[in-house]
Order: sequence, then C-alpha cells, then structure tokens
Amino acid sequence: MHTAHGVIRTPIFMPVGTLGTVKSLSPEELSAAGAQIILGNTYHLYLRPGCDVISRFSGLHRFMNWQGPILTDSGGFQVFSLAKLFKIREEGITFQSHIDGSTHLLSPEKAVEIQNCLGSDIIMCLDQCIPYPAEKHQAQDALELTTRWAARCKTAYEQNFRPGSALFGIVQGGMFKYLREASAAALAEQDFNGYALGGLSVGEPKELMFEIADFTLPKLPDNKPKYIMGVGTPSDLVELVGFGADMFDCVLPTRNARNGQLFTKHGTLNISNAHFRDDTEPAESGCNCYTCRHYSRAYLRHLYMAKELLSYRLNTIHNVHYYLNLMEEMRTAIYHDEFETFRKKFYANMER
Amino acid sequence: MHTAHGVIRTPIFMPVGTLGTVKSLSPEELSAAGAQIILGNTYHLYLRPGCDVISRFSGLHRFMNWQGPILTDSGGFQVFSLAKLFKIREEGITFQSHIDGSTHLLSPEKAVEIQNCLGSDIIMCLDQCIPYPAEKHQAQDALELTTRWAARCKTAYEQNFRPGSALFGIVQGGMFKYLREASAAALAEQDFNGYALGGLSVGEPKELMFEIADFTLPKLPDNKPKYIMGVGTPSDLVELVGFGADMFDCVLPTRNARNGQLFTKHGTLNISNAHFRDDTEPAESGCNCYTCRHYSRAYLRHLYMAKELLSYRLNTIHNVHYYLNLMEEMRTAIYHDEFETFRKKFYANMER
Repeated sequence: MHTAHGVIRTPIFMPVGTLGTVKSLSPEELSAAGAQIILGNTYHLYLRPGCDVISRFSGLHRFMNWQGPILTDSGGFQVFSLAKLFKIREEGITFQSHIDGSTHLLSPEKAVEIQNCLGSDIIMCLDQCIPYPAEKHQAQDALELTTRWAARCKTAYEQNFRPGSALFGIVQGGMFKYLREASAAALAEQDFNGYALGGLSVGEPKELMFEIADFTLPKLPDNKPKYIMGVGTPSDLVELVGFGADMFDCVLPTRNARNGQLFTKHGTLNISNAHFRDDTEPAESGCNCYTCRHYSRAYLRHLYMAKELLSYRLNTIHNVHYYLNLMEEMRTAIYHDEFETFRKKFYANMER
Repeated sequence: MHTAHGVIRTPIFMPVGTLGTVKSLSPEELSAAGAQIILGNTYHLYLRPGCDVISRFSGLHRFMNWQGPILTDSGGFQVFSLAKLFKIREEGITFQSHIDGSTHLLSPEKAVEIQNCLGSDIIMCLDQCIPYPAEKHQAQDALELTTRWAARCKTAYEQNFRPGSALFGIVQGGMFKYLREASAAALAEQDFNGYALGGLSVGEPKELMFEIADFTLPKLPDNKPKYIMGVGTPSDLVELVGFGADMFDCVLPTRNARNGQLFTKHGTLNISNAHFRDDTEPAESGCNCYTCRHYSRAYLRHLYMAKELLSYRLNTIHNVHYYLNLMEEMRTAIYHDEFETFRKKFYANMER
C-alpha cells in the first residue's frame, strides 16, 4: 500500500496510539520494533487535545513526532463504548463527552473533517456498530445506515481531497452472512480505497468470528486492502491472514504489556510470576527486541512488581515487536508461498 | 574521579535510580542526557528485589543495563524516612520493612556488604541522620556514632576490598559548626576516598544550609571529592559548587518532572498550564535534549493532562538534561576560571 507517508507492506498490524502516543513508547521505539503504520483514535483526539491544537501542527504526524503513515478510526466505536450518552439519528451520532459531559454531533461529514484535520493517511468511514448478540432487523438497520453514511463520507472526502490520503469503507451486518454480503456489495459499488470488517470480536464465539471473516473477505474487491478492526490474538492474526486479511489493529499487545503479560512464540507469560524472580534469561529466548537484548525476566519482574514506569515500556516494546515480527514472518511465508508451513510451525511452537 | 566503570568529571550531578531504574528512563536516555554516574538506593534494592537476585547478575550494573559508575547510599537515610519502626543501637539500626513489615538489622558491616553485592563503584558509610531542629547533645551523639560506624565500615570495606571501588565517609553534626568541624576532622583522620555532607536540606532555612556547607567544605581534605547529599535546586547547585562541592544527588529533576514541572534557564514552568495548550515551542528554547528537539509544549501538556506514560519520560529527559547540562556549564566555567561570570549569567537568565 502506498500512502503520503510511505509504503506499507501487508499483511500488517497497526499498534494503537489512542491519544497521540502508543502508550509508553517513543516513535523511535515504534520504528525499531518494526512499526510501519500506527492507528490514532479520532474520538479521543477530537476531545483531547482538540482539532484546533493539532491543526497548529498541520496534523498528528508532527504533533506526535511520528513520520510514518497513520490510520484513524471514525470515532464511532469509541462513542458507542465510552461516551456517556449517545443517540443515533440519520444525521449522525449525538453524544456526551466521557471527560466533561459536553455534547457533540459526530456526523459522517464531521468524522471526515476531523480525520482530515488529523492529517490521517487512511480515513475510516463513520459506521454504526451493534452489540452481540443482535437481532436481524437491528443488524440490517445498522448496515443500511452505515452504507448511507459511507456515501456521505465519500462525498465529504472528495470535496476536501488531500492527495495521498485514502478512504476505507466498513462492512457491517452482525453475524448474518447475507447481511455481510449485502454490506460488502454496497460498499464495493461505492469504490473505496480499502475495506474493513467492523463489528467483529465484540463478544461472539471465536469460531463465529472466523466464519464471518472467512465468508466476507472474498466478497470484497480482490485488489484492495482488507482490514479486520480491533482484532486480535496472535493466533487470530494467523487464521485471518490465512483467510486473506491484510490489516489489523488491537490493544492486546500494548494493554497486556502494561498488565505484565508478555507474548512469546511459546505462548504468553505473566512476568509477575514468582518463578521469574531470579531468572537471568530474556523474556523470549532468541527474540531480537530491545527488551530481550538487554534485560532479564528477573529485571522485568522486579520493575513490574515495583510498579516502575520503565516496566510498562520494556514490556510494550517486547509485545509490539512480537506482533510486528509475527506479521513479518507471515509476509515472508506468503512471499515464498509457504504460509501453510508457517502456520503449522506457529502452532507447533505454541505447544512446546 | 576514576572508578571501575569509567572516569567522572566533576562537579557532577547524579540522577537518582532508587529501584534499579532512574524512573521512566532507559540507560541509553541517561547517557544521551549526559549522565556520568547514577545513584542507587541500598535500602530499596536490599528489600526489592534483594541481594540474592542482584548477585545473580554480579551486581546492579548488569541487572539494570547501566555500564557507567554507580554510587549507592548506605540505606540509613531511607530507614529513617521510610521504615515503619527503627531502633538505633551501637550495633546498627533495627528496622521493619515498609513493604512487608519484616525485621532487619542494618549495621555498618551489613551496609558495606549490601553495597558490595550491588557492585557499587562508590560505597557510602552508614551514618545516623538527625532531624532539624535538633539539640546539641543529639547532634553530638549522632556524629560520634557516625564516626565509630565509619571506622567499622572502613574495616569491612578493606576486608572485602573490590578493586576500583571507593568508600566515602559522611560528615554529620547538624547545624552546629564546631560539631561539623569535629566530624570532618575525625573522618579525615580515617582517610576515606571521598567525603559527603549528610543531614543538609532536612528542613533548615536555605541560608543556614549554605552557611554550614560553606563552613564545612574547606575543613575536608582538599584532594578528595566532596559530595552534598540530597541537594538541591539549580541555584543550590550553583552556590554549593561555588563553595567547593563536587557531587550532588537529588530527586528534584525526576520527581518534579513526573509532577509536570520543567526546569529551564529562565526558571520552572508547569506544563499543565492552560497557556501551553497550543504552544508550538519546545519546553525550553535552545535546549538540545531529545524532548526539546522533537516535541512542543502543547504536546507535552497534552500527554501530561491525559496522564500518558510518555509524559513522565519526556519531562524527565528534559529535567535530567537540564541538571546535567548545568553541571557541564559549571565545569567549563571552572576550567576557564570564569565561574563568577557564569554565576552572574545564571541569575540574570533566571530573571528574564
């Protein structure tokens, strides 16, 4: 994928930089861990520090000192999950800030406007997320509204087109295959630069998530990037790449790092475990990340138990590196047409 | 000063690495900010992670990935300020851990043993700190005990001598000049590698602290480093270097950074100030630290208001760089015999 801030090799995982920072990491550490693109949260940045501040820096890149590509979400998902009250109408979503209770309208046009102000390389259309489980009529109403909003987003995007930027549509339809198919077709007709699957990993059984993704991905245009939003565990990524997904974002590697959980090729480890008290080995033997090259499990455990700020950072560096390295291994396997071999090896390692 | 882990140019400030980490910073960031030597806290490290863990790494340097010199305090000051209960006897200090209430004896021999286990480059003698104000007899008793403990520390140090390590004695005597003089003389007679002034900046008026330091420093051997413990503000350092002090440590630059206070040559600024909301300037114009080279006051304020982990780190980098750069400016001024000119310029800048 080509963006105004560089080329992205897919499939790729995007570390989540909610508030203009991937929690605890510097941009240099993100690059060293292999980050090609990061995600910014429109809802959060719109409320804090606000578009007027970020526009003083001509966008998020300079504000946060990240020179690579940035994908921003539409803000919709956070409104549904964080705002105090929200009301969905044809015009858009009216909500109250979870910070100061102030009232705002997030319309398709506003979502594009904010993302333009953030200088986003990949803009996401405003969509309506539904909970799981949901009734058919609820899923259908939401996807139809999402389709109409997508058209309005596209118009707004084209009216204020920034060269190098891209606009992605979001497929909804809940856990109903025929609705997913209808949503994919309606969006494909509108011709976006890429397509996302929204409304997955919202509480449904894992098998159902895989079934919907496997069903829907081939329904999308073959020559456009396909992005599964908010997913997932390492094995989720392996399965979904197998189904043809190109892009992912998830807070798991960063959030779990701050809770002391480290991802390794042999599964996760909780660094608070007393077993690691005097363990001189790195978090993951053979790992090439900054943390594993310089620090032991004993030191990581000590920092975590003492609630030292460096703990969250060293753990995050490792987890982000783990995720990004996993994606790189998948890219290499795909390039050499050895994905199935890779997949088997991935699971064999996990069981060792 | 020559140590087993490198040469230190004085006068120097030592960032405080309480628990085997200068809070929020990596060793590489410390080096980039100009740190030549850091301080580790014996009390904290003895309790967490414990000497048995650190000895697995042959000391603190490898445990925390810091290759430069480390000075460790004796643990006495933290026992007095943090431990739940303590009792001072000739043998040493019995105390209860502030973490789990377990009982420990910190004797002069134990203090040296722990610091040897930490692989300290500069070991501090165990001393008795007294509060301010204190009666003469209290100050006299404490200094006499400190002198006897210093002799025991020296014996213990020599019995388990590690080449390249140094042992410093600590001058006590409260705010009584004749006691300070007696303490300095008694320690000088024992011939330590360096001497510290303890029991300053414990609540006394600033003028009194300066008076005692100015009086006591010339009473110490001229050819040995002189260290003022736990001090101080930037202007404290300028005054005390003027009096002949060579070494300092203080939590001010690191702790205040985490509270949003940034040191600059024109005084301090509180980054939470609404005035900085859309300020595109760096924290300190002309500052060469990583933070000022890459980030604006608006971004620093945003991170601080959002309680982002990166906030504490970027603020700490700036403050530590400020302190270390101030020391470097003083070294240069002393080298060129222009200290008084430097001092005047320092205060002139502060008033601008």
